[in-house]
Amino acid sequence: MHVVVNAATSADGKLSSRRREQIAISGDEDFARVDRLRADSDAVVVGVGTVLADDPHLTVKDDTLRTERREADRSANPARVVVDSTARTPPDAAILDDAASTYVCVTEAAPVDRRADLADHATLVTAGDDRVDLLRAFAALEEQGLDRIMVEGGGELIFSLFAAGLVDELRTFVGPTVIGGRDAPTLADGEGFVEEFPTLELESVDRLDDGALLTWRVEA
Amino acid sequence: MHVVVNAATSADGKLSSRRREQIAISGDEDFARVDRLRADSDAVVVGVGTVLADDPHLTVKDDTLRTERREADRSANPARVVVDSTARTPPDAAILDDAASTYVCVTEAAPVDRRADLADHATLVTAGDDRVDLLRAFAALEEQGLDRIMVEGGGELIFSLFAAGLVDELRTFVGPTVIGGRDAPTLADGEGFVEEFPTLELESVDRLDDGALLTWRVEA
Repeated sequence: MHVVVNAATSADGKLSSRRREQIAISGDEDFARVDRLRADSDAVVVGVGTVLADDPHLTVKDDTLRTERREADRSANPARVVVDSTARTPPDAAILDDAASTYVCVTEAAPVDRRADLADHATLVTAGDDRVDLLRAFAALEEQGLDRIMVEGGGELIFSLFAAGLVDELRTFVGPTVIGGRDAPTLADGEGFVEEFPTLELESVDRLDDGALLTWRVEA
Repeated sequence: MHVVVNAATSADGKLSSRRREQIAISGDEDFARVDRLRADSDAVVVGVGTVLADDPHLTVKDDTLRTERREADRSANPARVVVDSTARTPPDAAILDDAASTYVCVTEAAPVDRRADLADHATLVTAGDDRVDLLRAFAALEEQGLDRIMVEGGGELIFSLFAAGLVDELRTFVGPTVIGGRDAPTLADGEGFVEEFPTLELESVDRLDDGALLTWRVEA
């Protein structure tokens, strides 16, 4: 399994404002890059916070890329995965539509009625008592043939994935704006590390749109 | 007046861990770059939070750079400035030693006894009722002949400077580590913007040490 975390942040490392409103950070070139990365992936993963804040669809937008996938005997879109400990994904969320298959990773603590509702729209992966056990959940995804994984946020999930040692690559587009705010979501939130910080290796740094794309490998 | 904000952040935009402990983010090349930037400045500015957390000295470390300043009829070190609404800078702080002149920007709300203690070690600039009025404080610094200003943090001060429209340039070294933490200090904290986000222009992006140096101009 290969896990790539991809995100666009402001120059001060924020994913959005403290109001959780999406802000246009990147431009057309980055949009196309993200679409290609999705098309190259077997699954695109987000946390439930991102689903509740943005209601993303997470499908491949470019027709040619979807056609290429079909011609390679793949589904038009990669699978979508929500990490959602207590099954809060709304049954009418865009991520549960018919455009692609969807997995929702829940815990034993998720209310049974909400799990039942979601099971009509998605494949449930149950792992963990009250927080999703990401190692077990990702192992279950791998068993489903999902090998190339792209993570699109948010900061809580990204931190948990780093803490679990599951991230192989980090790609950040750093955009030409300052968002600020001690309560604004950042690329990696959660509790944070206080020692044994993950170490990265800078693979490339490039100008893209009006910002910079940094590609990091996570050292084992 | 020209104001440059300089900071080193993790790949996820943090200045330090949630424990406020300094973390080695950059290396020798960045250290030398920061030292040159200090030597090119008339004053180096920090918030009192940084003084309390790190007790920085903020002097030029390289002998040659200090000698060059002296040969140009300047002080060996740039002036040091603390933005400190309630005069919390400890009288034995390194920033108040004899290595350079120091200004402490306080408000009318700062206790008189603490102001009196600080006045033995620094020039006090009083601006604002309960929060330092940065426009007035920086105008007072300019009147003292301090024209090229370098700001070294922390995130609360940096946000306030952006909010006041006082920043001309932002230079961030982005280092090869992830710190994480929703409570960890970021490059720009404070309340955060929710509209009228400052717009930057990417002047340059370079590899430096094991990370990347991004230089942004702030658009007027």
